[in-house]
Amino acid sequence: MSSVRSRAGRRSAADAIREAHSVIAGMERRVPAFELLGENSLAAIEDAADTILEEVGIEFREDPEALELWRNAGADLSGELVRFPRGLLRSILKTAPPVFTQHARNPRRSLKLGGEHVAFGPAYGSPFVRDLEGGRRYGTLADFQNLVKLAYSIPWLHHSGGTVCEPVDIPVNKRHLDMVASHLRFSDKPLMGSVTADERALDSIEMCRIVFGREFVDQNCVILGNINANSPLVFDATMTGALKAYARAGQGTVIVPFILGGAMGPVTTPGAIAQSVAETMAGCALTQLVRPGAPTIFGNFLSSTALRSGSPTFGTPEPALGSLVVGQLARRLKLPLRCSGAFTAAKLADGQAMTESTMSMLAAVQCGANFILHSAGWLEGGLVMGYEKLILDADFCAALHTWMAGLAIDDNQLALDSFREVGPGKHFFGSAHTIANYRSAFWESEVADNNSFEQWRDAGELDASQRAHVRWKKLLAEYEEPALDAAIDEALSEFVAQRKAQNADQWY
Amino acid sequence: MSSVRSRAGRRSAADAIREAHSVIAGMERRVPAFELLGENSLAAIEDAADTILEEVGIEFREDPEALELWRNAGADLSGELVRFPRGLLRSILKTAPPVFTQHARNPRRSLKLGGEHVAFGPAYGSPFVRDLEGGRRYGTLADFQNLVKLAYSIPWLHHSGGTVCEPVDIPVNKRHLDMVASHLRFSDKPLMGSVTADERALDSIEMCRIVFGREFVDQNCVILGNINANSPLVFDATMTGALKAYARAGQGTVIVPFILGGAMGPVTTPGAIAQSVAETMAGCALTQLVRPGAPTIFGNFLSSTALRSGSPTFGTPEPALGSLVVGQLARRLKLPLRCSGAFTAAKLADGQAMTESTMSMLAAVQCGANFILHSAGWLEGGLVMGYEKLILDADFCAALHTWMAGLAIDDNQLALDSFREVGPGKHFFGSAHTIANYRSAFWESEVADNNSFEQWRDAGELDASQRAHVRWKKLLAEYEEPALDAAIDEALSEFVAQRKAQNADQWY
Repeated sequence: MSSVRSRAGRRSAADAIREAHSVIAGMERRVPAFELLGENSLAAIEDAADTILEEVGIEFREDPEALELWRNAGADLSGELVRFPRGLLRSILKTAPPVFTQHARNPRRSLKLGGEHVAFGPAYGSPFVRDLEGGRRYGTLADFQNLVKLAYSIPWLHHSGGTVCEPVDIPVNKRHLDMVASHLRFSDKPLMGSVTADERALDSIEMCRIVFGREFVDQNCVILGNINANSPLVFDATMTGALKAYARAGQGTVIVPFILGGAMGPVTTPGAIAQSVAETMAGCALTQLVRPGAPTIFGNFLSSTALRSGSPTFGTPEPALGSLVVGQLARRLKLPLRCSGAFTAAKLADGQAMTESTMSMLAAVQCGANFILHSAGWLEGGLVMGYEKLILDADFCAALHTWMAGLAIDDNQLALDSFREVGPGKHFFGSAHTIANYRSAFWESEVADNNSFEQWRDAGELDASQRAHVRWKKLLAEYEEPALDAAIDEALSEFVAQRKAQNADQWY
Repeated sequence: MSSVRSRAGRRSAADAIREAHSVIAGMERRVPAFELLGENSLAAIEDAADTILEEVGIEFREDPEALELWRNAGADLSGELVRFPRGLLRSILKTAPPVFTQHARNPRRSLKLGGEHVAFGPAYGSPFVRDLEGGRRYGTLADFQNLVKLAYSIPWLHHSGGTVCEPVDIPVNKRHLDMVASHLRFSDKPLMGSVTADERALDSIEMCRIVFGREFVDQNCVILGNINANSPLVFDATMTGALKAYARAGQGTVIVPFILGGAMGPVTTPGAIAQSVAETMAGCALTQLVRPGAPTIFGNFLSSTALRSGSPTFGTPEPALGSLVVGQLARRLKLPLRCSGAFTAAKLADGQAMTESTMSMLAAVQCGANFILHSAGWLEGGLVMGYEKLILDADFCAALHTWMAGLAIDDNQLALDSFREVGPGKHFFGSAHTIANYRSAFWESEVADNNSFEQWRDAGELDASQRAHVRWKKLLAEYEEPALDAAIDEALSEFVAQRKAQNADQWY
């Protein structure tokens, strides 16, 4: 009997883990967004954005097709400078879906983006990686694949992300093939594709066609491209090329200004927000001119500058406030929002890193962001993807799941019977209410040490970063590849090999 | 000319520091509180609290005077168990002031408590201290005085606190004399007194009379006592003795349940909140029976338990949500609120510590707390006051000043002229708007490292904790005692010596 019970116990624990692992396809936020500003203030920022669009305008450089689309839509062109009559962009944006699904190759991991849905993805774009053993070094394809496997293994990250680090050991013009193949092979969560050239965007989409089927990709969003404005007020042809490739294929775009206040935008946060809104509206609207109804995400990236040194700063209070306002404005536009992330300027996964990242991530969920890229791993203002930082951040993502679930107010939660049972001066450990509820009662961290000092000391006095190191090593050791049809796997490899053979290596 | 300018420059920088140092007497929160729950949910929790008070009741142990006060007020007594007819406590609480001033011996540091006012104080009650050099050890009077000096030196901490650590080298029955004398001598910020016996509370008040004058103290609040409920649903005679001493003297009380869910309260957060509200209302109401109009603060201390191990946990999502609700309920009662702090279960000022503390402190300011004790230094669930943690937390308090100031939406902040000046593709570093605004533009941390990797590496690769170590050493080295009238100083010393001579040392 006891062996049966223990086997059942083991099976059920394993089931629970497997279920937790596969079922979490994003979160639904059940707490209200934080409404920082009132109607008049929001309207004033929108008016400022409209004024920037109307009077100053945005340059679309070296992309005659984009200029032609704007001209036909009724914008005022002067060379490459496009000015937008008031209301034009809002009117164009009406065709953009407020919520859409990004399909994963495992349908249980498909994500809804928009509304009250929230999805976390790992940090994006770092040339360097860091871990406690190897220190700080250039990222490689091996690192890239490790990071994809880790993001796959962590249920609190819903999205596989894109350039989880730059694999600098692969030629620049071929990296995207290995990156997209790695996402598709080592994870079954939704992914992001290349944006560094329109043909690389097309390759990314083509690889999805191999995995999802051509017809499915034509009718559904399976990949996102992250399109940066060249703030202030410029989009270059590389970015609009990728934007058009994704939009034309009905795939998702994330339009993201990159504003460090004082450098690419004004030092005052409301002005930076107005600029950000102007740039994002223009980018999102362009996707609708390419293909009305194409899924597009209103993106935001605000940070500040240490004005004495000129260094960018991250996780500071001004962008946290800015995120809350951007969230309010995105809701008024009825567009899915990408905002914030686990930002920090710290070099290590230390107290600075986690203070800044925690402030920034709380702003992300409180502002109502739907897609939170950079949720885990970010160090040094994005120059470094940290293995231990990834684990600590992902643990905070887990905490945010509980936070976003909010509080349910019902008889069981109010627990009046427990007070009647326990009464003054007694403890609740063995009460019927505790026994009935303790399994689901409190969130428990996977890396925090809540033990006594003596237990912690005897276990080697590990700090959070050292415990995170142990954890990512364990996750990688236990990683199992999600099943992929052998024919698809082979077709992917063939495509990569063929495309690599067609071009000489480029290293810049 | 150049030497004049440089002297003027030096003078003005010193002036600025001195001014920042003296002027910050609390903050006014200019951002809205986070309203987590709607009316029905709040009313349900209030109803549950009223049911606990009416059906289960609260024990007031070994305090016949308190029982007599309750009997005369209309409560139902059964031995030491007091049950409260619905509405009784709310009616009694009407005499409690929604906002009051706690005077500091430096009038510029007097604090308003209540409404939109926010004051930060250091952590309270740790038997141990920790710093990078000395490690973890019992606190001494020398540590206590160091910590008072540090809290005095940090403008972002508005309150000197109380038991900033236990000076265990001083007899238990005499510690309060040295603690209160140290606050009064080494700081001129508001302070907290002893609550561990009613005569120690009276000593604390008497020492304030020496410094502020007897008449001033009779008419103004100059000291706070932190009164803990023995949760669940008990107040003991030590605590009600101190409560009565402070209230009778017209001094402030902070009434604080201590609820670790699953131990001293139910495992479900709404139930723990209802309990907390019941206990706090009873304690605050008792102060009004002792002296109607006595200043009292609605306190809250919710945390969770790791139910597999039974260890208390801190800085987790459930108490962060709980704080938001407690804030809503305190506002409905129109009482000043003490809530949350820089909580953590971590042993070191590492990533775990700062994740947990940041989440907890953001909940504190977002819930609308007015007095945030434990704002800086807390480690190991309150067992340890950390010197480096104090510095890192205080730096986050600085960030919260900027956060709480919110965003002003006006023409300068919207910066439209800067876009007209700079235009697409240019940078804002030299723009007229940047030059006019950069001094006040962005908050800058005093311990974060925002430099490049190379600068950081060449400066010795210090982590946040190591930088904090350098900072507290520097602050202590530069500390200057605030002026205190020599006669008062002597009278204080005499009082302490006399009271010490009257009693034999007690070490337990």
